[in-house]
Amino acid sequence: MTDSTDNLNYTDPQQRPRYTGLATFFRLPYREDFEADPPEIGIVGVPYDGGVTNRPGSRHGPREVRNMSSFLRRENQATGAKPFEAKVADIGDAWVTRPYALEGAHQEIEAHFARIHAAGIRPLSCGGDHSVSLPILRGIAGGGPLAMIHIDAHCDTGDGYMGSRFHHGAPFKVAVDEGLLDPRRVVQIGIRGSVHSQEMWAFSYASGMRVMQIEEVEERGWRACMEEALGIVGETPCYVSFDIDALDPVYAPGTGTPEAGGLTMREAQGMVRMLAGLDIRGADLVEVAPPFDTAQMTALNGATIMYELLCAMTAGRAG
Amino acid sequence: MTDSTDNLNYTDPQQRPRYTGLATFFRLPYREDFEADPPEIGIVGVPYDGGVTNRPGSRHGPREVRNMSSFLRRENQATGAKPFEAKVADIGDAWVTRPYALEGAHQEIEAHFARIHAAGIRPLSCGGDHSVSLPILRGIAGGGPLAMIHIDAHCDTGDGYMGSRFHHGAPFKVAVDEGLLDPRRVVQIGIRGSVHSQEMWAFSYASGMRVMQIEEVEERGWRACMEEALGIVGETPCYVSFDIDALDPVYAPGTGTPEAGGLTMREAQGMVRMLAGLDIRGADLVEVAPPFDTAQMTALNGATIMYELLCAMTAGRAG
Amino acid sequence: MTDSTDNLNYTDPQQRPRYTGLATFFRLPYREDFEADPPEIGIVGVPYDGGVTNRPGSRHGPREVRNMSSFLRRENQATGAKPFEAKVADIGDAWVTRPYALEGAHQEIEAHFARIHAAGIRPLSCGGDHSVSLPILRGIAGGGPLAMIHIDAHCDTGDGYMGSRFHHGAPFKVAVDEGLLDPRRVVQIGIRGSVHSQEMWAFSYASGMRVMQIEEVEERGWRACMEEALGIVGETPCYVSFDIDALDPVYAPGTGTPEAGGLTMREAQGMVRMLAGLDIRGADLVEVAPPFDTAQMTALNGATIMYELLCAMTAGRAG
Amino acid sequence: MTDSTDNLNYTDPQQRPRYTGLATFFRLPYREDFEADPPEIGIVGVPYDGGVTNRPGSRHGPREVRNMSSFLRRENQATGAKPFEAKVADIGDAWVTRPYALEGAHQEIEAHFARIHAAGIRPLSCGGDHSVSLPILRGIAGGGPLAMIHIDAHCDTGDGYMGSRFHHGAPFKVAVDEGLLDPRRVVQIGIRGSVHSQEMWAFSYASGMRVMQIEEVEERGWRACMEEALGIVGETPCYVSFDIDALDPVYAPGTGTPEAGGLTMREAQGMVRMLAGLDIRGADLVEVAPPFDTAQMTALNGATIMYELLCAMTAGRAG
Amino acid sequence: MTDSTDNLNYTDPQQRPRYTGLATFFRLPYREDFEADPPEIGIVGVPYDGGVTNRPGSRHGPREVRNMSSFLRRENQATGAKPFEAKVADIGDAWVTRPYALEGAHQEIEAHFARIHAAGIRPLSCGGDHSVSLPILRGIAGGGPLAMIHIDAHCDTGDGYMGSRFHHGAPFKVAVDEGLLDPRRVVQIGIRGSVHSQEMWAFSYASGMRVMQIEEVEERGWRACMEEALGIVGETPCYVSFDIDALDPVYAPGTGTPEAGGLTMREAQGMVRMLAGLDIRGADLVEVAPPFDTAQMTALNGATIMYELLCAMTAGRAG
Amino acid sequence: MTDSTDNLNYTDPQQRPRYTGLATFFRLPYREDFEADPPEIGIVGVPYDGGVTNRPGSRHGPREVRNMSSFLRRENQATGAKPFEAKVADIGDAWVTRPYALEGAHQEIEAHFARIHAAGIRPLSCGGDHSVSLPILRGIAGGGPLAMIHIDAHCDTGDGYMGSRFHHGAPFKVAVDEGLLDPRRVVQIGIRGSVHSQEMWAFSYASGMRVMQIEEVEERGWRACMEEALGIVGETPCYVSFDIDALDPVYAPGTGTPEAGGLTMREAQGMVRMLAGLDIRGADLVEVAPPFDTAQMTALNGATIMYELLCAMTAGRAG
Repeated sequence: MTDSTDNLNYTDPQQRPRYTGLATFFRLPYREDFEADPPEIGIVGVPYDGGVTNRPGSRHGPREVRNMSSFLRRENQATGAKPFEAKVADIGDAWVTRPYALEGAHQEIEAHFARIHAAGIRPLSCGGDHSVSLPILRGIAGGGPLAMIHIDAHCDTGDGYMGSRFHHGAPFKVAVDEGLLDPRRVVQIGIRGSVHSQEMWAFSYASGMRVMQIEEVEERGWRACMEEALGIVGETPCYVSFDIDALDPVYAPGTGTPEAGGLTMREAQGMVRMLAGLDIRGADLVEVAPPFDTAQMTALNGATIMYELLCAMTAGRAG
Repeated sequence: MTDSTDNLNYTDPQQRPRYTGLATFFRLPYREDFEADPPEIGIVGVPYDGGVTNRPGSRHGPREVRNMSSFLRRENQATGAKPFEAKVADIGDAWVTRPYALEGAHQEIEAHFARIHAAGIRPLSCGGDHSVSLPILRGIAGGGPLAMIHIDAHCDTGDGYMGSRFHHGAPFKVAVDEGLLDPRRVVQIGIRGSVHSQEMWAFSYASGMRVMQIEEVEERGWRACMEEALGIVGETPCYVSFDIDALDPVYAPGTGTPEAGGLTMREAQGMVRMLAGLDIRGADLVEVAPPFDTAQMTALNGATIMYELLCAMTAGRAG
Repeated sequence: MTDSTDNLNYTDPQQRPRYTGLATFFRLPYREDFEADPPEIGIVGVPYDGGVTNRPGSRHGPREVRNMSSFLRRENQATGAKPFEAKVADIGDAWVTRPYALEGAHQEIEAHFARIHAAGIRPLSCGGDHSVSLPILRGIAGGGPLAMIHIDAHCDTGDGYMGSRFHHGAPFKVAVDEGLLDPRRVVQIGIRGSVHSQEMWAFSYASGMRVMQIEEVEERGWRACMEEALGIVGETPCYVSFDIDALDPVYAPGTGTPEAGGLTMREAQGMVRMLAGLDIRGADLVEVAPPFDTAQMTALNGATIMYELLCAMTAGRAG
Repeated sequence: MTDSTDNLNYTDPQQRPRYTGLATFFRLPYREDFEADPPEIGIVGVPYDGGVTNRPGSRHGPREVRNMSSFLRRENQATGAKPFEAKVADIGDAWVTRPYALEGAHQEIEAHFARIHAAGIRPLSCGGDHSVSLPILRGIAGGGPLAMIHIDAHCDTGDGYMGSRFHHGAPFKVAVDEGLLDPRRVVQIGIRGSVHSQEMWAFSYASGMRVMQIEEVEERGWRACMEEALGIVGETPCYVSFDIDALDPVYAPGTGTPEAGGLTMREAQGMVRMLAGLDIRGADLVEVAPPFDTAQMTALNGATIMYELLCAMTAGRAG
Repeated sequence: MTDSTDNLNYTDPQQRPRYTGLATFFRLPYREDFEADPPEIGIVGVPYDGGVTNRPGSRHGPREVRNMSSFLRRENQATGAKPFEAKVADIGDAWVTRPYALEGAHQEIEAHFARIHAAGIRPLSCGGDHSVSLPILRGIAGGGPLAMIHIDAHCDTGDGYMGSRFHHGAPFKVAVDEGLLDPRRVVQIGIRGSVHSQEMWAFSYASGMRVMQIEEVEERGWRACMEEALGIVGETPCYVSFDIDALDPVYAPGTGTPEAGGLTMREAQGMVRMLAGLDIRGADLVEVAPPFDTAQMTALNGATIMYELLCAMTAGRAG
Repeated sequence: MTDSTDNLNYTDPQQRPRYTGLATFFRLPYREDFEADPPEIGIVGVPYDGGVTNRPGSRHGPREVRNMSSFLRRENQATGAKPFEAKVADIGDAWVTRPYALEGAHQEIEAHFARIHAAGIRPLSCGGDHSVSLPILRGIAGGGPLAMIHIDAHCDTGDGYMGSRFHHGAPFKVAVDEGLLDPRRVVQIGIRGSVHSQEMWAFSYASGMRVMQIEEVEERGWRACMEEALGIVGETPCYVSFDIDALDPVYAPGTGTPEAGGLTMREAQGMVRMLAGLDIRGADLVEVAPPFDTAQMTALNGATIMYELLCAMTAGRAG
């Protein structure tokens, strides 16, 4: 009888005991110099949290999500997806050398993603706070505005706050203003909590985004919501942004702006799996703030969401 | 273009960055001398835990719930409620100067709530252990017994235990005995866990209270349960008591008597929102015990429940 | 009026305040020398974690589950079960004197359970890692293979891994190979997560086990799944194995191999309660690893599952 | 060659792996019915914290100190003491059946220690808050007042506070008032921190106690301080009371009233070892409050101090 | 007999049980509108951490230090100081309305301290990261450069880093450059750890500051070091800056840049007490980062250092 | 003026912000294929904890020490050492492919270190439990037995325990038995705690090792102790083994066998710095067990000790 699972190849980092070795994303090869032999999907950290309005700490997100991503294995049992059969690599971090000025830092991030985009790589990013989605979109946008599936507790379409239009509660308003997103093809799911005023997310409604509050998800079910969302995005090239605070705080205590009453992981995983057929040009998982985490729960769930995003971005490869 | 959300008024504590300044409830004005200009709703701490039967620590609840309540904002996105358009204030704590004797402490708490009641203020209280609901009811009761919505893992209608009738497992039996509550208009929701014997909550059933165990909530759904509950209370002036251990322990690890298998926050928030039409004369959130909490989860969820209770108590004011 | 609940008997450990005294399982009498007066059900710790493939620590499980089991009381409110009316005792631990060799340790555990079995005691065990289920089955198996209800995130029917066939991902393949289990009467529920390859749990499917992934539980509901499972087991004498990682990591952070998206405690409790009519010859709760726990959540939920298992094993005794 | 350390006797709880089995104090035999065959030293828990003025939780102290005491072994390497060659047992807890009234609880504790004393047992107690030292002294005092070595951050000779003379800041004033202690033979070491007023500990000075503040310990060294202290106590039968908050908070975070700038464990261990020649009639370790602990540090250090106290109480037995 | 300590005045926040009421600094009156009746010493939070080079979180410092400062009482037992006999108040926070730009935020902080200075108040500040010492000095500097006692693990006299001269590793170089400090009257104590290069703190040495590394403190003793330091400062009006990372990480885990091998609290308290005779124009305690804290240790020690600083700033008032 | 510290080179991992990028040891280049271009010093993880006698978890040590080692910078301020001017690299982990058998795992570790030794690399290892020092010594030993400086709470010269001679309490007895160490040139420092019997460490004394208990270190001072130790080792090629439990548990809570009353970090750092002149052939830091750590304290201190060991191993290079 073949002792198949014991034929581990210890020169393959993904086959070693999961507590050993370096903590790259999913124990993938690490290639900072990604232009030399560009992967199809580049997993990239964005350790920047200068855009938060309350609790900082998500600059430490990429390192801790890398750490917990060692728990993920080669094949998605629920769907049969085998994401690592695609050419995937950990391509390092978007280094920010001027972190003390929000707009300058964003320019550096944008330049890094422009470089990734130019190499023909689709990025799967790990924040960092949600403000980084704006320079990512600037970096990867090309011919025409993108559609977007946005899973979050907050619409993040606010306006200026504390002297800046570029904080983590506003990236998607600016992205629409700059023509990077087509608001009529944007769906925001999981929105909830208290707001400063009705103005806070007014731009989402006014611009034509489809906002699904958590109560709608609860009543209709996540599957029906996602089917509608897929119809809205359609064939349009799209971006996926998953803010970990979309999850209920018990699933994601380590985040800057928790809101009670969010998604469960079963709901979130089901939702992301439905994205498999979309034309995804990039995706991010943001707002994992390890200093507020407990039992590494948020990092584990964040890594799991990134794994599901990767499966969706590489769909069609399952054996 | 109007930069509406940036016109923050930094002399208004509720508009300052949420990590700054003093931790009053919801960053409201603090008025210990509440008789001078009585608010409609007075939010009051009851830092007393001398009535517990197992783990103490809820004396520290008010301070930590105050701390985490800074996360809540002006408007309830799910319902449109704007609770702070009512006159609401943090009116301080019910000081207990003789904590070493349970009954004496209760007399002090009762006197404090009688003073609040006399000032025409409806109290929203933050415990403290559940024994404090009894002196609160004594302090605010007036013409005839009240109805009650009671969300909890335990009926708290026990009898004497370890030499006292006034511990945190018994307040509502005594309240019925004293004519403060009409048991036929009392609904207890979320009840579960193991019991010492069938006698433990026998008074609830014998006196005519409607007890909905968690299994009933799961099977019928929280909405159906609450509709029945609202029918039972009807127009009768009522009290609302929310014990944080009604929540599953993952949502409320920081409590004295956790019971596995409880409510989720989505269920709890939905249930409290349905109370908006009732004639609520007072409400409490009890049993948040910060020494047993992790990641400030229980305090955040406790503050959120208090916010929903406040919205229900001020219903009709939403714009 | 009878002050019934105050007639506590302080010579009865189960009636003392729950934070006092020794932490035996459920504050039961402790009888290492169990042959002298054998209980019907013996609750036994198996503090061994030499079979883990990733994070160790479940050797500390029995002590911490004992500690938190003090929260459980005499009667199951949901079902009316009174498990301690059966003769139940804490019969100590399966001492492992040679822990540095996996197979030797298993032989010691097997011998201990053979001794328990010979005394006519049905064991309810607390691991320890899941590898211990194999020597337990060896110790208690008698006339013909057993059926099994297996609630877990992993099938644990793997083959050799890192040089051993006896690690915690493989006990049930070996048990089938050795004729201890009838695979056609084995149901595995809650399975999920990523896998190294399709080979990983292939033995479950090939041997005829009924595997219910978490997605099936979510879609059909736990009640329907369990009804099918009960039909498969039927009247066959059976074993029940509950791996705490069947629960979502928020309910069981303290475990060695967490997988996002698992069962809630309400689901798990409901499922175990349905086992009441089976002919249960032994049961275990494994993989509670306190060093990774937070707020003693995993130990509390583990103790609660053990309580529900005990109720199922003693069904028919409720008054 | 003799494999001496491998001849472990697994029927001896103290020889089993330290993470296994029941958590009695030092894995000693457990004898609640201590009169049957009285040990020389009885180790007893006093799970009562109704006398605290700030943070509660030391009711959970005995169970957690029992847990961590498994780390201690048979022989004190620094001194050669072999404390378990004396007849020592874990004799259970001083059950408090009326915890809601401070004075009643104290009467129960006193009665329990009177029973221990009548059996000829010298008690080594584990609190509970410091108020319990008073009923212990009442229970064991016989012919004439005792001397005392008292290691603590606080003199605990206060007067009435919040309506009671019997809280944890006052036991030793009352003990002097009742003739249980001879103040001229009382030494208080490690005193520090801020005080409400100079009146707070005035009784210590006025009654003739020798108060050594932490600054004196730092300047003279713990050895010189202890030599003076031994001279003051002399041949007089004495009591030893060690409040864990004598330690710096980094060594004892889990306590109710931490004061920065305390003793290190090396100092504390050295000090307790010097007590070996005294005529110790009883000793206690109090104020371990596990809910505020981190990494079980306070419980480990508390268990270690109890071990050193036990060595001092059984001195002369070392081989 | 007078029951003096029981005559608590419950309208005085400092006399109430310490776990109750609002968490102002030392439970002092709160006066944001401080010009109306200026205190002699104003305790002020500076919740800003935009200048960190590694771990953020000290923006949450003021709130948590306020919380733990409730442990401090009216009189310093070691010195007899009674700091609250001076007119002292919690004057709120230095609100930063433009946090996303380091230099702009510093301008706001400077303006706030200029306002405090103009009111004749000497500030005792609680950071925030160490970059805030620069705008504080700008705000309070008047006739000629100040001397400084600086207790820290780092000299913080670095130059530009990541595009800014104003980060938390550089305030005192800029302060010298701007004429706010006289480097020949600056003493830096507790310096240690690894450095990027010898250039890192070269400015300290080149400008004539007296740098005492931790090894010098260990060898000569803190008392001798401080005597030399007092001689250097002499009669010159001075500033005191205490970075909590001067403490060993076990005393201050909750900080952004921990360095092993630091001061103990006994050393630090002794050192600050020796400052009592200086002409202190302002002082700060910075770098308490609660998200990295455990058991509230750093906040407790930070509050204790602030208390000692307050005693030094109000020296001469002890009765 | 030259803005020297701002000329950071962001292609140099050691110059990037410390929270970014991969967590190699000290952010050094990672070279698993170390034979290609062998470094002078190879830093290597040994993620194996199969030899523990109590709490496991040190298999997770290398990854977490790598993580916290990012705090260390290029130059040792206390000594001027510049360790990275030597050729140093992170050469990966000693992969254990057969972890379930202690002796087999040791053989794999030995083979890995033999390969390192054959490449001319001196290893600085990060455990893993202390049992790994034996196979490391086997792997690197050559012409004649080594001397050893061993800093630890335990002598680790025990005999068989629980069926094995190779557990983490015995490596150095076996090493002497095998001629790998010259016991007359072995110094063991920091020894303390309780022992099972006088036999436990009898081999140390009988074989001629110099054992310095913690009491001797306290009385004579670490400097005098180390001077004697250096004299004993002399010019003999030596090994250095530092067990993190040599530190007091407050400095190293995350370890398997904590013993109260240990070294401070200031003492430990001073001691390791004195090793600079020795002929060190290899060194290890063992027993960091992250699951028991709090605030990453043990990992930070472990990384700092490794940094000091590296400085000692590369002494003579400071500019």
